Amino acid sequence: MTFLLQSTLCRLKEKVRDIPDFPKKGVLFRDITPLIGDGQFFRLVMMIFLERYQRRKIDKIAAIDARGFIFAGALAHILGIGLIPIRKKGKLPYQTFETQYASEYGLNTLTIHRDAMRKGEQVLILDDVLATGGTAEAAAKLVESCGGSLVELGFLMELRGLKGKERLSRYPVYSILQFP
Amino acid sequence: MTFLLQSTLCRLKEKVRDIPDFPKKGVLFRDITPLIGDGQFFRLVMMIFLERYQRRKIDKIAAIDARGFIFAGALAHILGIGLIPIRKKGKLPYQTFETQYASEYGLNTLTIHRDAMRKGEQVLILDDVLATGGTAEAAAKLVESCGGSLVELGFLMELRGLKGKERLSRYPVYSILQFP
Repeated sequence: MTFLLQSTLCRLKEKVRDIPDFPKKGVLFRDITPLIGDGQFFRLVMMIFLERYQRRKIDKIAAIDARGFIFAGALAHILGIGLIPIRKKGKLPYQTFETQYASEYGLNTLTIHRDAMRKGEQVLILDDVLATGGTAEAAAKLVESCGGSLVELGFLMELRGLKGKERLSRYPVYSILQFP
Repeated sequence: MTFLLQSTLCRLKEKVRDIPDFPKKGVLFRDITPLIGDGQFFRLVMMIFLERYQRRKIDKIAAIDARGFIFAGALAHILGIGLIPIRKKGKLPYQTFETQYASEYGLNTLTIHRDAMRKGEQVLILDDVLATGGTAEAAAKLVESCGGSLVELGFLMELRGLKGKERLSRYPVYSILQFP
């Protein structure tokens, strides 16, 4: 993405706020609310996603609950395609596929509606943060369970120290910002 | 909104799926996933919100977790303004204001970051469904706690039988679709 200057990415990174010891002691939480709370910066993020995905064949965007919904809602609108929510167990009302996975904070179950996509549809998964990759891997498996073809897993930011990219090595992964 | 034909609203309504007995027996759940899963219909919804809000002075959109994020993400992008998440207790990492409220399914606490907006900013609250109005009322109080001025509470749909609009009578309320 040649239009992206390093200085632009630095300015974006400065809008991410560090919160020590959240949600538990010893964890440094990267808080994106100052970034998305500023319309110019939020739009810049969406323009970067758009630049990356506008020429790809994408039929649906699968959004990971909850902050993934923010970016997926905007991108689905811009591209004029549908959005598929991937949510924790008990949240989706219709028949679902489910996958259990271990996150940084315990064991979770993620679900997707069985009729969310047609076989062979090209699906982009979006979320805000790539951490250990547990959630993202579960989301990718759910898309595959529905017969979807995964275009990429896109994130606003990657926390490199948690090695999520390694865990997702069988999938294409993209992040706008990288933190240690 | 003169451009909106009754037939358009009927077609939108047909994309909302009825799920009986979810999340518990006796509740008829209105499932929006078929609507947002179809890019044309999702865009139509956003165009209706845009038509309503593009000429208003709005500084921020406050989005109610989780499905509100989808519509708020899209509208914040279109309008080029910031998005403020309103989330259940324990989800926001920085200092928060909080409000407790009774929902259809029990007692909840909703929170907002204390620094989410500047005093006097014009704030639109968006969510997918207006049911009893408990969540929405709590969100409105949180925006006021931060010093924001509430422009309106906007919803994709209103479930009239639950009388949320009456509960929110001190605030301007708008919904695209109305169900009994």
